[in-house]
Amino acid sequence: MIQALIFDVFGTCVDWRGSVTRAVAEQLPGVDATAFATAWRAEYDPAMARIRDGGRGYVPLDDLHLENLHTTAHAFGVVAPDSLNTAWERLDPWPDVVPGLTAMRETRIIAPCSNGSIALMTRLARYARLPWDCILGAEIARDYKPKPAVYLASCAALRLPPEAMMMVAAHNGDLHAARAAGLRTAFVPRPTEHGPDQSIDLAPDADWDIVAKDFTDLAARLA
Amino acid sequence: MIQALIFDVFGTCVDWRGSVTRAVAEQLPGVDATAFATAWRAEYDPAMARIRDGGRGYVPLDDLHLENLHTTAHAFGVVAPDSLNTAWERLDPWPDVVPGLTAMRETRIIAPCSNGSIALMTRLARYARLPWDCILGAEIARDYKPKPAVYLASCAALRLPPEAMMMVAAHNGDLHAARAAGLRTAFVPRPTEHGPDQSIDLAPDADWDIVAKDFTDLAARLA
Repeated sequence: MIQALIFDVFGTCVDWRGSVTRAVAEQLPGVDATAFATAWRAEYDPAMARIRDGGRGYVPLDDLHLENLHTTAHAFGVVAPDSLNTAWERLDPWPDVVPGLTAMRETRIIAPCSNGSIALMTRLARYARLPWDCILGAEIARDYKPKPAVYLASCAALRLPPEAMMMVAAHNGDLHAARAAGLRTAFVPRPTEHGPDQSIDLAPDADWDIVAKDFTDLAARLA
Repeated sequence: MIQALIFDVFGTCVDWRGSVTRAVAEQLPGVDATAFATAWRAEYDPAMARIRDGGRGYVPLDDLHLENLHTTAHAFGVVAPDSLNTAWERLDPWPDVVPGLTAMRETRIIAPCSNGSIALMTRLARYARLPWDCILGAEIARDYKPKPAVYLASCAALRLPPEAMMMVAAHNGDLHAARAAGLRTAFVPRPTEHGPDQSIDLAPDADWDIVAKDFTDLAARLA
């Protein structure tokens, strides 16, 4: 029986692209805000890769986001204020997320298993009203997904075996890693996470334990 | 300005003595339940002391509670079921706690800074409906209060300097340690935590930043 559900956040729970684009447009007038947001996010995985590979010690995502902000601003020929980094604390949830999480929380522990830090996930939860029971994920493990340590540390923090936990994500890669660590898996597509021309993660690429239309559908299937 | 409030839990937020006594009475009929609960809790600090002193690596409080349960049961000449250990996940809040926390959460991040594990604090919060934004405390630091590392790790997890955080406790010793680590302090007396004959922590023993009657009073003073 699944006793806890852990969730990818960026893309799965919240629309980072639309929300960061809005913040960029407000703070960097004259810049192509959508292109800037996309470029900023494109620095995300390479920055974590160095840490996953051991080339750099654990650094919270807030700091990586800030470094990446200035790299991106330089490429766009502008100077960005550090305060723009808090855009990642004000990401709008997809409309099904809060009702779906609220329903799932009735019967199971729910927590983020994100690469975001405790600070970032806490502030984002307050902004987006995500009703988490606790904050799990990268900072607990001091490493980054998709390293197995992140999923396993989240299970250990709840004192549950991986088979009693389910990872929920809009990204097949996240679910492959979670399944390899022994967790159950649920796929919820977010076909516009990357904009109208999205070409990846439009559909499940494996036989995930659950494939749901959205979070309210997932809640109904788990009930 | 205080941006986050962190709370002692056992005694300050919840009535561990009454709640554990009730669970003992249910599961160990014939035993003096109040005496058993008191004796079980008396093993708490010595068990943590070995870890604080470096004589033993970090072990979550759930495991210490279980060891202490069997030590206590042996002293009482009974055999206790392991399941009795979950009594610590079902502790009743003092009546002012949920309304007070709900009010404080409107303007500030709130989190436990307890010696309880993430698992224990998460399950207790679900039982007692404590509306935490995240779970901080001993497990984040892999050490036990009153070691400064526990307070400082909780500040670091929120990316706030200690002077922007306030520790709330019914125990003067906890506040002395928090103040030494640079945090602001609030004392809320719980004069029946240890029963009708309580002799300690009936009043503040230093000039804490706030002394409040209860959590709703504390919320009003912070507003």
